[in-house]
Amino acid sequence: MLEQTSKKDSQLIFGRNAVLEAIRAGTAIDKLFVAPTEQKGNLGKIISLAKAAGIPVKDVTSQKLDAMTGNQVHQGVAATIAAAAYASMDQIWESVRQKGEKLFLIIADEIEDPHNLGALIRTAECCGAHGIVVPKRRSAGLSPTVYKSSAGAVSYFPVVRVSNLVSFIDELKEQGVWFYCADMDGQTWCQTDFGGHVALVIGSEGNGVGRLIKEKCDFTVSLPMSGQISSLNASVAGGVLMYEIARQRMAIKAR
Amino acid sequence: MLEQTSKKDSQLIFGRNAVLEAIRAGTAIDKLFVAPTEQKGNLGKIISLAKAAGIPVKDVTSQKLDAMTGNQVHQGVAATIAAAAYASMDQIWESVRQKGEKLFLIIADEIEDPHNLGALIRTAECCGAHGIVVPKRRSAGLSPTVYKSSAGAVSYFPVVRVSNLVSFIDELKEQGVWFYCADMDGQTWCQTDFGGHVALVIGSEGNGVGRLIKEKCDFTVSLPMSGQISSLNASVAGGVLMYEIARQRMAIKAR
Repeated sequence: MLEQTSKKDSQLIFGRNAVLEAIRAGTAIDKLFVAPTEQKGNLGKIISLAKAAGIPVKDVTSQKLDAMTGNQVHQGVAATIAAAAYASMDQIWESVRQKGEKLFLIIADEIEDPHNLGALIRTAECCGAHGIVVPKRRSAGLSPTVYKSSAGAVSYFPVVRVSNLVSFIDELKEQGVWFYCADMDGQTWCQTDFGGHVALVIGSEGNGVGRLIKEKCDFTVSLPMSGQISSLNASVAGGVLMYEIARQRMAIKAR
Repeated sequence: MLEQTSKKDSQLIFGRNAVLEAIRAGTAIDKLFVAPTEQKGNLGKIISLAKAAGIPVKDVTSQKLDAMTGNQVHQGVAATIAAAAYASMDQIWESVRQKGEKLFLIIADEIEDPHNLGALIRTAECCGAHGIVVPKRRSAGLSPTVYKSSAGAVSYFPVVRVSNLVSFIDELKEQGVWFYCADMDGQTWCQTDFGGHVALVIGSEGNGVGRLIKEKCDFTVSLPMSGQISSLNASVAGGVLMYEIARQRMAIKAR
């Protein structure tokens, strides 16, 4: 069964066969919701297939599934479908090689607001970045709201989902990528050299970039704050920094 | 009577005395709604007082007012209260003089999305601009959503509301202000001289800057678009341009 749920702001499928077939068919699924209290049957199989496919699995109560599905027969399982497919880091490296450019990657660290994630994807696509990375947990998925806020950019632009951002950063650093954390008390954004393989880390509105992630970064870059408000909207700050990186890469001389 | 309406996303007052007293008390009112079919009584007086106070007046049906007020006794009139008071251009010029700076003004041309208007106000406050101007019609007002999206910046930051943007621009041009329109096919943003009294015009998501407004502008400034999506989110584009103006004013040398 398939229906549009305004509450979860995603297309929702539920019922064991519907979910099983969707996973088997390789449908881009944002998250699997299972009620472990329900009769087991083939639920274990669904969970293992989902995990093997890299889909985040979340335990919920049966009552929660009742509410999500509007009291329809869900058999203890539901899944939200992504508005676009996720990409792999290999695909991004391939496009970097094809274009003969240095990597220009955005890391959206726990951006849970779908409007902000969508706007970041839209700006990244517009300014010539190669892809965006989101963590599996505590991040907006590719929901219809993200799709809309991205002005459809998620259809063209590679979005990679990773389980562990810290180890992902370690891997990329070994491949020669420099990490730039957008935060307070860093170096002046437009005097920072973004000439190498660059990954720009943007944190969430409330918490900024996570401590563990920030410690992994090679540089912190900041925008001057002249007013009484102490921070910018995440997608605006990301946009200003992305366009500085783009400016340097296009070798546009600033006044 | 006063109640929070999620639908209009503003505090709503209704009933002739309540509205009359709010206008007399100088309460910041976003818009007055009147049902001209209702018995006249002191409705004419309310309308003239509102117009004299520069409050936009909108004709609606009695049924619309029923819906807005949840079928309470509205006596043909209701008003949405602004989350913060509007400022005047004189106040902005005064702060420009006090700081000994050149004017740095944002014009939000028909930005109807409250999230975008709020984010523009937040960025303007953060980057050291002096104020933002919104038209009375076809613009989000200072609603609670704008307040929230601005991270509270509307409490500190002057927002001026004008009836006629075109004649407002004419007046400011006579005072030596240069108008920069954010749009396609303009000059490169970071090679544009923003040294004088500057007003940056940001248009709406759907339509961009209005034709009449654009014709009044002295310059058009653009950001390079490298992807398949043809435009940025209005608050992101505004943010990138505002930070370029801020950079030049702070005399921060870019690499």
